[in-house]
Amino acid sequence: MSQAACVKKTDILIEGATIISPGLIRGSDESIVVVDEGSIAIDDERIVYVGPSPAPLEFQNAAKRIDASGLIALPGFVNAHTHAAMTLLRGYADDMVLMEWLEEKIWPIEAHLDSEDVYWGAMLACVEMIRAGVTTFADQYFFMDDTAKAVRDSGIRACLSRGLIATSPNSAEALRENIELCQNWDGAANGRITTMLGPHAPYTCPPDFLEKVMEAAEEFGVGMHIHLSETSGEVEESRAKHAGMSPIELMDSIGLFRFQTLAAHCVHVSPGDIEILSAKGVGVAHNPGSNMKIASGIAPVPAMLKAGVKVGLGTDGASSNNNLDLLEEARLAAFLHKLANNDPTVIPAGQALSMATLGGAKAMGMDSDIGSLELGKKADIILLDVNKPHMYPKHDLTSHVIYSARSSDVTTVIINGKPVMEDGVLTDIDEEEVLRTAEERAKALVAKA
Amino acid sequence: MSQAACVKKTDILIEGATIISPGLIRGSDESIVVVDEGSIAIDDERIVYVGPSPAPLEFQNAAKRIDASGLIALPGFVNAHTHAAMTLLRGYADDMVLMEWLEEKIWPIEAHLDSEDVYWGAMLACVEMIRAGVTTFADQYFFMDDTAKAVRDSGIRACLSRGLIATSPNSAEALRENIELCQNWDGAANGRITTMLGPHAPYTCPPDFLEKVMEAAEEFGVGMHIHLSETSGEVEESRAKHAGMSPIELMDSIGLFRFQTLAAHCVHVSPGDIEILSAKGVGVAHNPGSNMKIASGIAPVPAMLKAGVKVGLGTDGASSNNNLDLLEEARLAAFLHKLANNDPTVIPAGQALSMATLGGAKAMGMDSDIGSLELGKKADIILLDVNKPHMYPKHDLTSHVIYSARSSDVTTVIINGKPVMEDGVLTDIDEEEVLRTAEERAKALVAKA
Repeated sequence: MSQAACVKKTDILIEGATIISPGLIRGSDESIVVVDEGSIAIDDERIVYVGPSPAPLEFQNAAKRIDASGLIALPGFVNAHTHAAMTLLRGYADDMVLMEWLEEKIWPIEAHLDSEDVYWGAMLACVEMIRAGVTTFADQYFFMDDTAKAVRDSGIRACLSRGLIATSPNSAEALRENIELCQNWDGAANGRITTMLGPHAPYTCPPDFLEKVMEAAEEFGVGMHIHLSETSGEVEESRAKHAGMSPIELMDSIGLFRFQTLAAHCVHVSPGDIEILSAKGVGVAHNPGSNMKIASGIAPVPAMLKAGVKVGLGTDGASSNNNLDLLEEARLAAFLHKLANNDPTVIPAGQALSMATLGGAKAMGMDSDIGSLELGKKADIILLDVNKPHMYPKHDLTSHVIYSARSSDVTTVIINGKPVMEDGVLTDIDEEEVLRTAEERAKALVAKA
Repeated sequence: MSQAACVKKTDILIEGATIISPGLIRGSDESIVVVDEGSIAIDDERIVYVGPSPAPLEFQNAAKRIDASGLIALPGFVNAHTHAAMTLLRGYADDMVLMEWLEEKIWPIEAHLDSEDVYWGAMLACVEMIRAGVTTFADQYFFMDDTAKAVRDSGIRACLSRGLIATSPNSAEALRENIELCQNWDGAANGRITTMLGPHAPYTCPPDFLEKVMEAAEEFGVGMHIHLSETSGEVEESRAKHAGMSPIELMDSIGLFRFQTLAAHCVHVSPGDIEILSAKGVGVAHNPGSNMKIASGIAPVPAMLKAGVKVGLGTDGASSNNNLDLLEEARLAAFLHKLANNDPTVIPAGQALSMATLGGAKAMGMDSDIGSLELGKKADIILLDVNKPHMYPKHDLTSHVIYSARSSDVTTVIINGKPVMEDGVLTDIDEEEVLRTAEERAKALVAKA
């Protein structure tokens, strides 16, 4: 019996990459570790070796070898807040005041969206995100069965919630749909799909409605994806209506944060709010691009990080951003908070990269499985080509990823141990059909609106 | 004699593009014009037809036809402020306080730069810019003969100046070098190279030195490229030293603005400063990425635009940005000023595109030749591939260029009528040699520093 035959066959061996990841060595917190010449072995869904090349002999007998010399290996980007199917509305309305934009443009056309639209819009989003190195996203929208199908079909990982608006006439039905989403899809697609409840925001979901949502969370053991304190107006309204409490204080007072909570935006938060977010382990999805484009304000991210709040990054929907490029959000986060704090040392490159990966995973409560290249974690890995003029010379590749790279430098994407893009080619998606169908459906929508 | 033989042969005919340009119809100011199915004919260096397809018969007999169906044609981006050879220092030092960054990292390594370094650093910059759709740049650095050679060799267009610092021991020699640059290179490379004088800034060039610079400007008929009011500190210093005058008031008082002036940054400017910039026709290069990353502050760009100041966009050097991606600057400008003004209607997509093209050309005094796709202008044209998921659906391609596209979507670049990149391939540059040599020289520099 030969030596090779004794060795368990590994599925994939990535060799020769520069590996850059937060928390590469278990327990090393979020500081970035760089391995100049590294290998990663994948067995089924998980990382079974990550470290210097060559990998030990037991991982050499791989079904598939990927030569990653000249490439950077990173954990896949985590898009901690989006509305995937809103890709269909990309560029439909821009440069408008928020309420006019919503009332005159977005809501009227959304009223015509059907289940097929959401499937193809979500497929377009998945294709765009995979190409940009996003391996996981957190979503809140409607017709979520169709977003779940798109996640299943595209090979990406997602945490899905049905948006709930208490004031809408179908709020009871929406909550039922959200519960069914959790029942039908949690753990589906080889565990790539997880679910949450999606109460839209405190200003659209008053405490009595949230009680029902919390009952469901208790019963089905799921967390919450909610918008908190995106605009100054909603904070003022909350304080006026709820005994001086901010949205975050209000949510804390009713006990929402005893559930795993992913809070989008958190722009207008007080030091007291930040204390609550930290103490209750609330995850924050910071969306710098959306906050800038809609002029919502500047979230106090450095203060949140200092207080130990789990901060990830999100793109928000493509109708208010207008792309799903998480690497762009990482650069924006670094740039914006240096400027806002009049301090170029704020959010250095490594911290921005950490927020874009492990930070998002933590904010979503998924960091035991994803967010870094660590032994035993799910194999969500992206490879970036550094053989581009904007990546030369190679003084510091962590700096280059955050400050110089573009998401088009991503060449290969592995999710849950399976390559979904190799050398720029999607392995299992008919991209042309997705683009064509999304275009057709968007045109038809505009004709209806 | 056949009909075709009667017709003058055109060099290039681009067919079927969606043409998007400011000022497409002469005299239509800077509003964006879109031609859904357009053609552009190029004869020698210039645009001889731009309008709907098919082009008139007289332009059909082209030596080269480019099928641009499914592509957007834009005027090439104008990078109105950079230090090209600083690509060699990309990622060498980041996330530091300005003076520590300069004194401990940048200046010590710059002291070792030689003429060959500048050539290869500038070549790397030219390759990066061409790939990103930048067809013209304004530069201020040293060993400018070598930057000029890189411009000549790469096929890009540039306006070059030698950085002058009165307080440096070689200031007289530097001024002589700048004058020789103007004498030797102005109009060179088929007119692709123009020149300016490069007094670094009022705080490094006191009025007596600037008198000598202005004498040279008078004698050689060239303009000025200068840094103005980048930091609040230099404005305070100016007011303390110069009878309460801001840098802009000081420059106005000594008559600098009677020369064509390209002023980089203009971050900390008063309403009075803006009046001067407008009245004297001073061009401003706004560098949002650099201003954010170094935490310099927010230039009051909407107020400048409202006052009629000619505002273009710049990347600044790659050691403080860290790339030369002007499309990214256009998006940053739109995002940043919406946020700063708490108004999402500020700098809509068309205005951002206009600043990235015609605005830069005006700021550099080159708008009679470049900056828009207009009959008789130099043929500086880029084609963008819209067949990408982030460009679907196609509700509004002007919005998509600014808010969704990435510079890697640029497929073809024509400068001065000559294709320098076709379908992503550089036609006349040994890119591999540029990348390899830049890497070697950067490594050697670090070893010396």
